[in-house]
Amino acid sequence: MSNVPYKIYLPEESAPRYLHNIRAKMKDNIEPLLHPGTLKPCTKEDLEAVFCKKSAEQELNTKDEYIEIPEDLIGFYRMYRPSPLVRAYCLEKMLDTPAEIYYKFEGNNTSGSHKLNSAAAQVHYAKEQGITSLATETGAGQWGTALSMACAYYGIELDVYMVKISAEQKPYRKMVMETYGANVIPSPSNMTEAGKKILAETPDSCGSLGCAISEAIESSMKKDNCRYVLGSVLDHVLIHQSIIGLEAKMACDMYDIKPDIIIGCAGGGSNLGGLISPFMADKLDGKNNIRFIAAEPASCPTFTRGRYAYDFGDTARTTPLIKMYTLGSGFMPSPNHAGGLRYHGMNPVLSKFYHDGHMDAVSIVQSEAFKAAVTFARCEGILPAPESSHAIKCALDEALKCKETGEKKTILFGLSGTGYFDMMAYGNYNSGQMTDYIPTDEELEKGFATLPKV
Amino acid sequence: MSNVPYKIYLPEESAPRYLHNIRAKMKDNIEPLLHPGTLKPCTKEDLEAVFCKKSAEQELNTKDEYIEIPEDLIGFYRMYRPSPLVRAYCLEKMLDTPAEIYYKFEGNNTSGSHKLNSAAAQVHYAKEQGITSLATETGAGQWGTALSMACAYYGIELDVYMVKISAEQKPYRKMVMETYGANVIPSPSNMTEAGKKILAETPDSCGSLGCAISEAIESSMKKDNCRYVLGSVLDHVLIHQSIIGLEAKMACDMYDIKPDIIIGCAGGGSNLGGLISPFMADKLDGKNNIRFIAAEPASCPTFTRGRYAYDFGDTARTTPLIKMYTLGSGFMPSPNHAGGLRYHGMNPVLSKFYHDGHMDAVSIVQSEAFKAAVTFARCEGILPAPESSHAIKCALDEALKCKETGEKKTILFGLSGTGYFDMMAYGNYNSGQMTDYIPTDEELEKGFATLPKV
Repeated sequence: MSNVPYKIYLPEESAPRYLHNIRAKMKDNIEPLLHPGTLKPCTKEDLEAVFCKKSAEQELNTKDEYIEIPEDLIGFYRMYRPSPLVRAYCLEKMLDTPAEIYYKFEGNNTSGSHKLNSAAAQVHYAKEQGITSLATETGAGQWGTALSMACAYYGIELDVYMVKISAEQKPYRKMVMETYGANVIPSPSNMTEAGKKILAETPDSCGSLGCAISEAIESSMKKDNCRYVLGSVLDHVLIHQSIIGLEAKMACDMYDIKPDIIIGCAGGGSNLGGLISPFMADKLDGKNNIRFIAAEPASCPTFTRGRYAYDFGDTARTTPLIKMYTLGSGFMPSPNHAGGLRYHGMNPVLSKFYHDGHMDAVSIVQSEAFKAAVTFARCEGILPAPESSHAIKCALDEALKCKETGEKKTILFGLSGTGYFDMMAYGNYNSGQMTDYIPTDEELEKGFATLPKV
Repeated sequence: MSNVPYKIYLPEESAPRYLHNIRAKMKDNIEPLLHPGTLKPCTKEDLEAVFCKKSAEQELNTKDEYIEIPEDLIGFYRMYRPSPLVRAYCLEKMLDTPAEIYYKFEGNNTSGSHKLNSAAAQVHYAKEQGITSLATETGAGQWGTALSMACAYYGIELDVYMVKISAEQKPYRKMVMETYGANVIPSPSNMTEAGKKILAETPDSCGSLGCAISEAIESSMKKDNCRYVLGSVLDHVLIHQSIIGLEAKMACDMYDIKPDIIIGCAGGGSNLGGLISPFMADKLDGKNNIRFIAAEPASCPTFTRGRYAYDFGDTARTTPLIKMYTLGSGFMPSPNHAGGLRYHGMNPVLSKFYHDGHMDAVSIVQSEAFKAAVTFARCEGILPAPESSHAIKCALDEALKCKETGEKKTILFGLSGTGYFDMMAYGNYNSGQMTDYIPTDEELEKGFATLPKV
């Protein structure tokens, strides 16, 4: 038995006091956000009309590698962080692999995922600025729950536009948000012009993140002293999520753990981007040769089958244009896809890393992800989120390759959350009713046809 | 700010290697279990017919204060233990109390509660003995989930008789157990004579723990190489749960924290008993003067309105007779009571402590428990189990008394679990539809009328 404990918890006093901004390390910077009207690079003022000032500032900050965490936010983080870096001894034993497997577990909080890291930061900044209410969207529900928790703590009102199919599949998620005082509206709704338009075209629409974003932005613009916040895709969210990677790296350093492979599930990219941020900085400096892998669903294959192009973040085409891997803002994932990771686009920094060959991506069908999830749950004692299960499946595959070759690789993956509110999907899987979906090329072409001409 | 961190995690290598058996410290020992047929004290052989050998041995062991934890079980515990002792800084600030508030949080595992501590121990012992299948009952579902997890890990088959009203209120609990491979049967069922009898008398029975116990015992007796296991009430379960108190005491000692009050919710007593065990040992030695408080639901007031008498553990009157506080095995709590803590009896050791004046008890109506739960969730970031919320309410009351008097007491309570599978109850509370229930004296008399004449 190695001297590494099952769970490495950093002492609170050595927890990170600075967040990491990977863009400061990139030689070629990413292409700027473009204003949807003028097609010119967005200014701070453009962004401040929608986002909190600090988020806008961070979104445009490509210079500072380290950004100080406010004292008050450090207090919030201490409620549930540092999160453990877990050595998966039981999984290794069950797989009989020479690989060492580690996971950074972000599910030990009531939101059930890493989303609370950015929610707390954004609500802290909103409060500091004197904002009194916020609006957002949520897909699988983790982001909405996380934001509800942060808003309850800081005393801020919150409207959450929740993708309708998720609201139906996960009624308890809605109740958790309501317990924390949030106002939850299934999207598309009749509360906004964007929602009304979708409902007029597709009355039985099951919703999409892109549509819910349009609704949340529109509703935030109509309210006094209100701003829009979002939980993934943009670079300021990645900065907040870098706390995952910073802690993971410190824990690795404590025990001289040197990952060969780092895996994260990828929807909008916040979990993956946060996890790899400081490791990638070292890679860009030539200090490691880690293989980074994005694990995405085959039903929403943004990296593996998407295009690297400027696109809107929402279906109503109101957001800035983002240079990213995308399936087109008109892409709608199949309703049989469970959980999150259903967004059409991908964080621009991760998109550039993938485009430049610094990162790999694999796509995974959902029944394989759930099979891996059940294997993991039974020997590691944690029932994972469907999203995280994509990373688990990828980690299992890599560990089994090591078994074949005899290589003793060190594999680290992000266990971004728990699946306690996804039991309907597990029930479908258990009863053999889960179906897989891989879009045809023709279906993808329909999405690509919605890409703007820039 | 004190030097105590938000969360005290013991290093894994200093985690307890021995469990605590409080009976070895008691001057007057508790009265023995009686065989239901002969009314003579139960022998090891009597108990081994129903329970695993090790559980039977521990149930009768009143001599050894410390019992070694098997190496393999230590490995299982390391998956999710040591659990944190949390300083409730945010709650203290919100209440503006001079009291220091701590909670031992047992919810950071997929079973969502402390129940996994005894489940892992009992399944380990069953495996060691060569048992291939187990049967049990579950009320709120935590015990069934915990046992499913332990059985999946050790490769043991499991039948769970789940109180029907809980199975209906918490469909997702059932799916979690099934994901871990358990066979879940709503109780009363047609699978057993005990279930059939209840259904014949009360076709729309919503079930009770007492009835589900009868069914599980009967079904375990019919199967080859099968034993019955239970998750509370009996003394061997308290031994397993003492790991909560042992860790809590070590964490307190590390930071020189001296609790004045220790509070736990009480249903069958496993959480409360486990938490207070080593602290009570010191109290019996005159080393502290801690006030211990059992927080129980007003709808099932075993301590505060029950009788100290010999009674059966189940409704079919098949278990040994237990000297305990009880409402009578025929007592059925109101269906509007959410969550667990609905058992008619109470662990015999705790019963004796209460009877002898070593422990206090308070009863709490459920809407007050939920109110406290929401207050706690919003400032401490954890959505508590309805059961644990009784302890929270009691802790809030004590902290507010300190605010009035200016006393700087140290309050420690057990946060036994999370409420992620209790959202229907939270939904009822949020929408103002939650009702309270306090049994009338006449209703209690009906329960007492079912007490055996011993």
